[in-house]
Amino acid sequence: MAELIEPRLLKGFRDFLPRDERERQRIEQTLGRTFAAFGFEPIDTPILEYTEILLGKGGGETDKQIYRFDDQGGRDVAMRYDLTVPFARFMALHLHDLPLPFKRFHIAKVFRGENTQRGRYREFVQCDFDIVGSDSASADFEIVLLMDRSFRAIGVDEVRIHLSHRGVFNSLLAGLGVADRGEQVLRAVDKLRKIGEAEVRAQLEEITGTAVTDTIMAYVTRGPDNESTLESMRKLAPDAERDLGRLGEVLQAARTVGISDRIVLDPSITRGLDYYTGIVFETFLTALPEIGSVCSGGRYDNLASLYTKERLPGVGTSIGLDRLMAGLEELSVADTQTGGADAIVLCSDGTLMGRYHAIADELRTAGLRIDVFPECRKLGPQYTFAEKKGVPVAVIVEGAGDTVTVRELQSRTNTGGLTVGDAAAVIQSLTAGRAL
Amino acid sequence: MAELIEPRLLKGFRDFLPRDERERQRIEQTLGRTFAAFGFEPIDTPILEYTEILLGKGGGETDKQIYRFDDQGGRDVAMRYDLTVPFARFMALHLHDLPLPFKRFHIAKVFRGENTQRGRYREFVQCDFDIVGSDSASADFEIVLLMDRSFRAIGVDEVRIHLSHRGVFNSLLAGLGVADRGEQVLRAVDKLRKIGEAEVRAQLEEITGTAVTDTIMAYVTRGPDNESTLESMRKLAPDAERDLGRLGEVLQAARTVGISDRIVLDPSITRGLDYYTGIVFETFLTALPEIGSVCSGGRYDNLASLYTKERLPGVGTSIGLDRLMAGLEELSVADTQTGGADAIVLCSDGTLMGRYHAIADELRTAGLRIDVFPECRKLGPQYTFAEKKGVPVAVIVEGAGDTVTVRELQSRTNTGGLTVGDAAAVIQSLTAGRAL
Repeated sequence: MAELIEPRLLKGFRDFLPRDERERQRIEQTLGRTFAAFGFEPIDTPILEYTEILLGKGGGETDKQIYRFDDQGGRDVAMRYDLTVPFARFMALHLHDLPLPFKRFHIAKVFRGENTQRGRYREFVQCDFDIVGSDSASADFEIVLLMDRSFRAIGVDEVRIHLSHRGVFNSLLAGLGVADRGEQVLRAVDKLRKIGEAEVRAQLEEITGTAVTDTIMAYVTRGPDNESTLESMRKLAPDAERDLGRLGEVLQAARTVGISDRIVLDPSITRGLDYYTGIVFETFLTALPEIGSVCSGGRYDNLASLYTKERLPGVGTSIGLDRLMAGLEELSVADTQTGGADAIVLCSDGTLMGRYHAIADELRTAGLRIDVFPECRKLGPQYTFAEKKGVPVAVIVEGAGDTVTVRELQSRTNTGGLTVGDAAAVIQSLTAGRAL
Repeated sequence: MAELIEPRLLKGFRDFLPRDERERQRIEQTLGRTFAAFGFEPIDTPILEYTEILLGKGGGETDKQIYRFDDQGGRDVAMRYDLTVPFARFMALHLHDLPLPFKRFHIAKVFRGENTQRGRYREFVQCDFDIVGSDSASADFEIVLLMDRSFRAIGVDEVRIHLSHRGVFNSLLAGLGVADRGEQVLRAVDKLRKIGEAEVRAQLEEITGTAVTDTIMAYVTRGPDNESTLESMRKLAPDAERDLGRLGEVLQAARTVGISDRIVLDPSITRGLDYYTGIVFETFLTALPEIGSVCSGGRYDNLASLYTKERLPGVGTSIGLDRLMAGLEELSVADTQTGGADAIVLCSDGTLMGRYHAIADELRTAGLRIDVFPECRKLGPQYTFAEKKGVPVAVIVEGAGDTVTVRELQSRTNTGGLTVGDAAAVIQSLTAGRAL
């Protein structure tokens, strides 16, 4: 016999066993339905693209992390490391087939050769949704509303969407005469939640001096409510009237729709990248602030400038599904206890095999999920098997197969002499409330 | 301004625009629900694995087609080219966490650097379902039943599942004294549908001589019904009693469950690979036989022999989703005409922005999918936009936003003065029967 190959996985890559994969599909499908309820449309793009497309101007971390190689035809190709760059390429390529504004969502795997020491995965799922082709308060607000509705749909009520506006921050920095050090300042402020106020203040003083730092720290400090925070921003950045007006419109719409208790105007939100130009947001689970933002994004001026001259302003956000799923499990919102099938038809007489499947098939027409044990064994081991799989009910066929016994496995309660139709009703009552 | 990068795709790779992506998701989710109704459980595995794992013994076509490279850590890695090999590795790795028999499904992308001239894609979706850990007629039949139910669930009633048994064929060849040329014979017979009887006969004569060829050709020729075909197989391969018995059990179960009119016992089905050891099947759309089998598979003796000493017999099959989707579109079973949203709230007064979203949100609670146009424009262009997107109904907010007009776009019929609750009822009646 040949030597065995060790069945191992690459570092940073995972298998999903049924329990977790079922939960991932539940979340993805719930999110998809929620996006569709807002008129957002699904797209997909290839996992492999020309490296030139994916790296664009290139630079920094991405270059080092991207999975890149020459394919059989000698093309320089790479695996996508996010869904934003492929979306930009997609919009440039299909601009004339898509009515604008275009609302899209995309839930798919991306790949980064990251340091796994930090608990990061090298293959993970992103969930992006964007509105492109419009620069309006309505589009900004719709993304915020959809973030809120998405979390509610998957069973998380206690989220806070923190938002601010990059234009107001830029105006503040221009007024302070430190616009040239804007990116450094943004990066420092962006770390507020991680490294704390004292450390950020120290970094800012190094970049801008003490006086400017005082003003910046005053700016990023929230008031007791959104209105007073907006008022304070207005005082410190009086030239940003238009951008402050936009923020005001979004906050007003949140009040009208009744979600303002979950919206936090938070000037410390900057999103490090210079990609963002307007509203920016991050989302925190109230019960688990320590896992960081589970949904972040903002408004950008021009999505696809690398690939087309057509200007495409937009606003969008991205849910990190793996971090969210870990959070849900910690909050016990995840549904990972429920086995797949509602009941299993047991096998005790090989000559009745066709009848077992006919009974299962009839039970399925009542909307039940019915497993069939594929081999004839004693009932005991078949009960044990069902319990291991998390199937709550067994169906034991009686005599020649005209009637059945339904057994609730946990309580070991049998109900016998049932027609298949009656058995369906009994199983339905025993399994009511199980997740689909 | 920097030079633009051409927004192109790699040959053999595709974008999915909303129309096609929506249909793909509809099919994948319908299949997933059908599999779950049979107690099959979803799993997922990484797209990237050690090349050693994926190529196993290696050999032939696969080696040339696989996307293989050294990652940042110098590991020899490759993108999966099917879902069977990763499943074998998965079973070897998680054997002790999974109660056997294990029924799993896996719908996911695979990658092959194939010749695109033949209309093949290099990134495509496979849909596999298997029962491992059991060698029983019940497992064989359940896969057949699930194939039938899967096609019905996605709206294709007219399929024929052709099945046979590799053990019977092997027994025939042994009886004829040509077991040593088995693989060549199987490969020739496997081409019957493509190259026709005369050409196969010529090839067989070269391999086995005229007398043996006559017997083989008699064997692979179907009788007028399954019973007479089985009888003819029994005469030609009298030593295969056990395997013929298994085939008989599967055919008997098909009669009991009432699907025998869609099952064709077809001894010409051999599946080229020596991987298969028992029942084998291929599936054809009655209206489109020319696209070939849309779902093929069979029984194997030992799934994971490369990675574990544990013997894992199983039976399973694979649906080629891209070929199937092309078939569905040709048969007009595909639903690609329906736009995403049921209605769109139009925008004519920026100060009412929050109200527009509140109305949309209320309509959504009635189960409707509601888009909101994000910018204020004249109504004409907003109607045109809705029609381009395939949204059938527009909602025009009246006055300060307490009442609305519902407009059916195709007939240009307006119903005015409606409360939001009444509008929901009107939109529901106008959009009844649209796909979800």
